Parts: sequence; structure tokens; C-alpha cells
Amino acid sequence: MPSEQNDPASRVPPMDSAEGEVIMTELVLPSHTNALGTIFGGVVMSWIDIAGAISAQRFCRKQVVTASIDDMAFVAVIKLGWVVHIRAKVNYTAKTSMEIGVRVDAEDPKTGVKHHTASAYLTFVAIDENGKPIPVPKFLPKSADEKRRHLAAVKRREIRLERRKKTN
Amino acid sequence: MPSEQNDPASRVPPMDSAEGEVIMTELVLPSHTNALGTIFGGVVMSWIDIAGAISAQRFCRKQVVTASIDDMAFVAVIKLGWVVHIRAKVNYTAKTSMEIGVRVDAEDPKTGVKHHTASAYLTFVAIDENGKPIPVPKFLPKSADEKRRHLAAVKRREIRLERRKKTN
Amino acid sequence: MPSEQNDPASRVPPMDSAEGEVIMTELVLPSHTNALGTIFGGVVMSWIDIAGAISAQRFCRKQVVTASIDDMAFVAVIKLGWVVHIRAKVNYTAKTSMEIGVRVDAEDPKTGVKHHTASAYLTFVAIDENGKPIPVPKFLPKSADEKRRHLAAVKRREIRLERRKKTN
Amino acid sequence: MPSEQNDPASRVPPMDSAEGEVIMTELVLPSHTNALGTIFGGVVMSWIDIAGAISAQRFCRKQVVTASIDDMAFVAVIKLGWVVHIRAKVNYTAKTSMEIGVRVDAEDPKTGVKHHTASAYLTFVAIDENGKPIPVPKFLPKSADEKRRHLAAVKRREIRLERRKKTN
Amino acid sequence: MPSEQNDPASRVPPMDSAEGEVIMTELVLPSHTNALGTIFGGVVMSWIDIAGAISAQRFCRKQVVTASIDDMAFVAVIKLGWVVHIRAKVNYTAKTSMEIGVRVDAEDPKTGVKHHTASAYLTFVAIDENGKPIPVPKFLPKSADEKRRHLAAVKRREIRLERRKKTN
Amino acid sequence: MPSEQNDPASRVPPMDSAEGEVIMTELVLPSHTNALGTIFGGVVMSWIDIAGAISAQRFCRKQVVTASIDDMAFVAVIKLGWVVHIRAKVNYTAKTSMEIGVRVDAEDPKTGVKHHTASAYLTFVAIDENGKPIPVPKFLPKSADEKRRHLAAVKRREIRLERRKKTN
Repeated sequence: MPSEQNDPASRVPPMDSAEGEVIMTELVLPSHTNALGTIFGGVVMSWIDIAGAISAQRFCRKQVVTASIDDMAFVAVIKLGWVVHIRAKVNYTAKTSMEIGVRVDAEDPKTGVKHHTASAYLTFVAIDENGKPIPVPKFLPKSADEKRRHLAAVKRREIRLERRKKTN
Repeated sequence: MPSEQNDPASRVPPMDSAEGEVIMTELVLPSHTNALGTIFGGVVMSWIDIAGAISAQRFCRKQVVTASIDDMAFVAVIKLGWVVHIRAKVNYTAKTSMEIGVRVDAEDPKTGVKHHTASAYLTFVAIDENGKPIPVPKFLPKSADEKRRHLAAVKRREIRLERRKKTN
Repeated sequence: MPSEQNDPASRVPPMDSAEGEVIMTELVLPSHTNALGTIFGGVVMSWIDIAGAISAQRFCRKQVVTASIDDMAFVAVIKLGWVVHIRAKVNYTAKTSMEIGVRVDAEDPKTGVKHHTASAYLTFVAIDENGKPIPVPKFLPKSADEKRRHLAAVKRREIRLERRKKTN
Repeated sequence: MPSEQNDPASRVPPMDSAEGEVIMTELVLPSHTNALGTIFGGVVMSWIDIAGAISAQRFCRKQVVTASIDDMAFVAVIKLGWVVHIRAKVNYTAKTSMEIGVRVDAEDPKTGVKHHTASAYLTFVAIDENGKPIPVPKFLPKSADEKRRHLAAVKRREIRLERRKKTN
Repeated sequence: MPSEQNDPASRVPPMDSAEGEVIMTELVLPSHTNALGTIFGGVVMSWIDIAGAISAQRFCRKQVVTASIDDMAFVAVIKLGWVVHIRAKVNYTAKTSMEIGVRVDAEDPKTGVKHHTASAYLTFVAIDENGKPIPVPKFLPKSADEKRRHLAAVKRREIRLERRKKTN
Repeated sequence: MPSEQNDPASRVPPMDSAEGEVIMTELVLPSHTNALGTIFGGVVMSWIDIAGAISAQRFCRKQVVTASIDDMAFVAVIKLGWVVHIRAKVNYTAKTSMEIGVRVDAEDPKTGVKHHTASAYLTFVAIDENGKPIPVPKFLPKSADEKRRHLAAVKRREIRLERRKKTN
């Protein structure tokens, strides 16, 4: 993982947040489910990662790789034939990395009832063709919602750095 | 295919158009492309069908099957690593069927340049558990855009019925 | 899309029609079907596109891309465990493009009963390594059946060009 | 494996060989190949098994399971973008089982050059809904080619039974 | 999520830890990687989830669903053609849930050099046929290594419960 | 296929057998099974080939292709939701090829009962970047078990060469 001290001078110009927003819709097929017709957690994680990667890539216009994912809970099951909505947004940027927030909702298409299933925070790093980290544009929160999410992301980042220190 | 004369009496109550709208985002992977790194037309058709089916299903809250697809042209190629946006909306409803309009745009994530790739019109039929066609709610266009799309769909339907007559 | 006026001088030599014929057989697996065990229309379209592309490629011996597909109807459902037969043949060639006819039949393997499911007409364009359209051999219909299909393809092409004019 | 002594009395009536013939065509995609762009042997085996299973199923009109496969060699490599032809035919039937012969050829679509890649002999057993072996129709070779293949299959069956004795 | 207070009386008898251990090996194919030939984080998460689910299921002999995953970092990239080793083990059990530890290593098959890629801790809940949580056997650590991992899992569980309290 | 006379002089140095051992675990998903929920033989063959290829590749540290597979029988069915264990080991090496032994066991995760399903012997050839066969390290059996398997492999190789002579 690259060191990510703030070095504004080497930065590319800031970019609009809306650019990075991604909406994905998936239909739960038999190959996504176990013997009871319930989705595998890993299938959801895989969609979260793709949505997050597209969001990060659309924001920085570079190839990205997943660096980390925060702890997440699956608070409701998702069943065969349901429709899954995945929404990904940039929350925060460091020198070469971006925190993307992803929210997953599942909908029973017969009733239209929606269940919040999971929320995830992923960090992606922008890389060049040799796989070396490269600077990303700075995310400048504008709306009240963006400012709130940005602030929360800053706190999460502090917790992450704190935890990593403890582990080493 | 079921006969679809208008019989308002047997209809379930009308429903809001926004319910049926679907936004899908897909990333073009190596398994979607040929030896030159260009997407297969059939992969795009497959995404169009899934987006259309979810849209129809979300509108009528029943299981649906694809009944037909109008002629469509692929006006731009889509390449490995690009992001594909699929947008599906209800345009028109008959007794047991719905016309769904789908628009496909492809985006080169490195530059952000978007290319309109294809537009498609599909007809889905709502079916019960024995596979028999069943009535769908009536689509009532509200916005100016919805009214324009509804009118165009009525014309396409006339052309379809005309064509089918000629073929028989 | 390339302009496709007839310019026989720049053509590569004509080729036998039988070369381009393709027969595909597919087994309907759980991942191809919805919650009622009925195949997705998009899966069938995807097989049609692959069969058509192989047929076009085998005829012109070049890489091809899907340019368009005519309107098509699914006249019978296909179920989990059934066997699907796809047959693709060259009907007509223009300067850089080929019309391929595809017929889909589905068979219940328990009874052997076959159902005609769909017929489709696709146009493929031959491309070089830079994605530029390149000439294809001329299709010369020989048998009575080929001549009949060739004539019908010429008419379909006129209708397509007519429609495109109207849209622009 | 079920005992397969001949008990003609319990047999269902004989059936035409042509019924069981299957022709499959597959396009080699990136997900079928290793880092050098060469197909995995297991992908070919998987297609051989599907073609054989469809052939056996079409012959006996029952669900079937793979019981065994004879030794086979891959005599030529198959590359990314090539077209693979798989042809499966019934050679012989015992009480509840069928020997299916499968031949695989690969074609470079750019040149049209075909390479014989592999030949395989598989035994399938017909089963009922509880997974118990059930009688299959008797295969009656008619053409000279069918008679030759039938005779060869009888010899292979003797060798198989001989080998199994040695192993026990 | 079920409440998981200790109620030894309702427990099924304890079971050997080795039962729950799982070793998976995966080959990185083109369909697992992005345009730079680097694996998607979500593919790795998906393998981690499957390995963890098999481990949990093998331990409790019941159907399981993923309840949560702790934060994890990808400390090294994995490339096309590499071999991925996934190792999953039970660390701890509560009344109806199990913590599974998963370790992922990637190996360049040309050199044999192995890279530790990620470590993950997942919680799975055992469910009955109606999706209701049911008791699992108690995990009794025996070896020094198992005792060490068990202790660490107890601490992680406290942190998780603490965090959840804060969020609510 | 390359000629494989022993020419110790051109050999690369011998290597430890344990290097080549591979353990794979797979979960049987709906997309692996037929309409009765029983796995396709071809799916098992595909896993056998991947496990064998990884084993051969890990032993010789080169790209490999499948050259042949000995006859094999499926002695027990494998069902949806079961766990499949595949174990692959080097048994013998010739100049440019390796015999890999693979054993497949299936486990019902609800009961823990394991069924030996199939055993297979595959030959892989090491190739360079142009697809030409290249020498592999010599496998030196050490343990009693390895010596027994090595001896059996030598006999199988003689039978294979004998058979091939007869066929030509």
C-alpha cells in the first residue's frame, strides 16, 4: 500500500462528485444461491466491489485496485428471483486512494417491498500501467449530504490507520 | 401470444410509471468480448433483456416472459474495460403485455466519453404460475416525455400488428 | 456503419454457401432460467448472435461485429432441461456486410416434441485489425432454397434502408 | 453401476439411430483458455460430456448420468477465437446404458483449416426420478457405418469389463 | 440477527475442530481480472465467502448464511494465471453462529513465490429450513494454535458487539 | 505429442514431490447440475483437469497443456449442495510430460458422509511460449506411497504406449 501523505502540489485538478456515482441493478439467478435459494454473501460482496471500482474509476479516470473493505454486516437475506440495487459514491479522497460508500437494497419484485441489506466502505487505489499508485483528483464535497459523508469518511480513515498501527 | 383487446373491466388498477424504471451498470470483462476485445452483440442483447424484464416485472409485480424485440442497430462498438449503462422504462401497456424501451450507452472510463450504442423496444407478457398470460396495470403517461414515448409506442404497436398480418 | 454500394472490382472471390452454415445445440441449465424455470429471452438472443457470428466469420474468414438484428418474436417458451437447436446460414452479402438467417427450435428431451421458437435475421460487418470494415466474398445462391432465401434477404435489406431513412 | 445382463423381455421398443445424433458448435472465449491462449482440456471434456448426454437422452428419452469415459488423447491444441465442432452418436446399448461416440474438431476461422482434436467414448446410464437405472431402447445399427461402429463398441465394452475385473 | 447468549443446555454436542478445516485452490482466469490482468477484489471476497461457508457448514452440519465480515486489506495484487490458496478454519462458536478465519495466499506458478494477500474473519449463522437460526455444536480449542485463535476471536467478538452498540 | 525418450543430460534438476500436490474444494451449485439436481460428469472432469494442471505446473514451473486422460468411471453420483474434494499429485515424469493422479471425493455437508467418486490419471506436457514441448524436472519418489504410485504409473505408461501402437 502506498503512503498517502497530503501533497496538494502533485495533485491533478478537483472533480465533480456526481461523476463518480454508480447505480447497478442485478437479478438473483439460481447460480447466485445456495440449496435454500438464499444468495451467497460473496456474490453480494462481488457486486459491491464492481460497483465501487466503477465509481472510483469514473471519479479518477484511471485503473483502480481494491485496497481494503471495512467490516460489514448482512442485515437481511436476499432470495432467488429478487432484484438487488447497488449504489456507489465517492466519500473521500487521499493522495492516491478513494473511499467509496456502497449501499445494497434488495427488492421482492412480486410485492415491491425493499430491504436494506448491507452498507460497505471500500478503499481503492489508482494505479498506472506498471501497477504503481498515482495521484487522484481531490473530492470536494458540495451538498450537505456530501459534506456529512465526507466527514464520516475522515473519521473512518482515522480508525483504519489506528487499527493498522495496533496490528503492526 | 395472447389476444390483447382492451377490456378495462378486467384490469387491475393503474400504477405510477416511475416504479418501472431500471438503471443497470455493467463492466465489460474478457468473457464478454471476442479476439479483438470488442463486445459480442449477444451480450448487450442479454443485458437489454434483463433490464427490460426487471422493468416490466417491477411495473406489473408479476413474472414476465419476453414476447418480442423490435429491430435494433448497434451504432458504436463497445470495448473491453468499458462501462455500459442500460436504462429501461415502460412506454405502453396492453391487456397482458408491456412495451419497454431500453437505451444503451457505453463509456470509456479512462476518458469519460460516452457513446450511444443501441436503443431497443421489447414486449413482455405477464404470466401466472401455469404460464398463462394475466392482466397488467394500465400505464398512464404523466410527464410530457412519458406522453411522447407513449404515443410513439402506440405507433410501433400498430406497425408490429400490421407486419404480423402480412407474415401470416 | 460503412456505406455498402456495390463495387465488384474491389471484391474478393465468391465462396460456397455451405461453408457458412452453423448448427449449435445447447442444454438449458438453471443459470439460463428465471424463477419459473423458463429461459430468458436474452439467453436465446445471445446464442443467436454467437451462431450468426460464427456463420458470418466462417463465410468471410475475417473477424466480424454485429451491426443489427431485425425484429423477432418468441413464439413458444423454452424450459429448464430442454435442448435448443440453433441453425445459422448466410442469406445475402453486401460489400462489407452479410445477412445471416438464424432459426431456433426447442426440444423437450423426454418426449422429443420440437417447438419452433424464433427466427432472426442479423447483419454482421467484417472488420480488419483496426476495426475498419473490409470487403467480404460475394454470396452466390445455388440451390432453389438458397435463391429463395437470397431474394427474401434483398427485400428485407430494402425495408431496413427505407426505415433508416425515415428515422433520420 | 447397475448390472446390465441382457433381458430383452423388459425392454422398451427399439429406436432409430439418427434420433440420437447431436452436433454442437462452440466458440473459444477468453474464459476457456489459459495464459497462453490455449484451451483447457477440461473445457473440451465438459463439452464432450454435454454433447454425449444430450445424445443419450435424445435416444432413450430419459434423464441420464455419465457412468464412464474411455481413455482419450488431445492430439492438437485449440486456440482462443477458434470454433470447436462436437459430434455425438449412439454406438451401442446395453440394458440400461448406452455407449456414445464423440468426435471433436477445431477450426481456425481465419483460414478454415480444421484439426481433429480428440475422440471419446462415454457410457451413460438412464435413470428414473429416484436415480435408479431403467431400461433403454435397443440400438439397431442399420447403415454400414453404424454396423462398423456398433461392432467396435462391443469390443470396447469387453475390454472395459475385462479391465474392471482386473482392478477388483 | 439472532441473540446469542450462552445457553449450554440447548446445545448439540461439541465437535472436533479439524472437521471444519477447508483448503481451496483456484486458478486466476481472464474472467476474474480487469484490463490490467489484476484480479478483482470481489472475486477474492467471493472465494473467501465460499471457503468460509463450507468450513462453517462442515462444522455444524447445517445450512449457513453469511452474517458479517470484518474489515480486511488486500496487501498484494494477484495476477492472471496465478494460483490462489484459500484456507478456512473455525475459530469460535456462539449459540447459533461461528467465526471462521480465512487466509488467502497467491502463488506465481512460474516461480513458486507465494504472497500473503489477505486475511478475513467471517461470521456465519446456522439456519433451519425456514431460515430461522438454530444452535451449533460448541467449538472446543485443543491445540495451542487453536487456543490462541479462539482467544483472539473472543476479543474480536467483543469489539464487534461494542461497535454495533455505538452504531445503534 | 513429443517423443519422450529418456535423455537425462538435457534435464533440469530434480524437484521435491510435495511441491506438486494440490487440494481443491468445490461447492456444487445449481449451474453444475441437471434437472434432477445431479452433477454433470463434465463439470467433474473440468475440475480434475484444473487440479491436474495446477499440480503439473507447480511441479515443473512451466505452462502445461493436457495431453491425455486415462479411462475413468464415476462410481457415485454427486448432488446439488454437496462439497467436492479434489486431490492431485505427480506420479511420474518423462522427458517433457508428467502423469498426475487425481482423486475425487464428494461429501454431503449435512451428514459428513464422504463418497469416493472417481480417480483419474492425466498426462500434461510442459510447453514454452511458442507451444513447443520442453523438459521437466525428474520426479524422484521418496516415501513408500510415492514409490508405489510411481511404479503403477510406469505400468500405466507402458499400457498407453502399447494401446497407441495398436491404434496406429
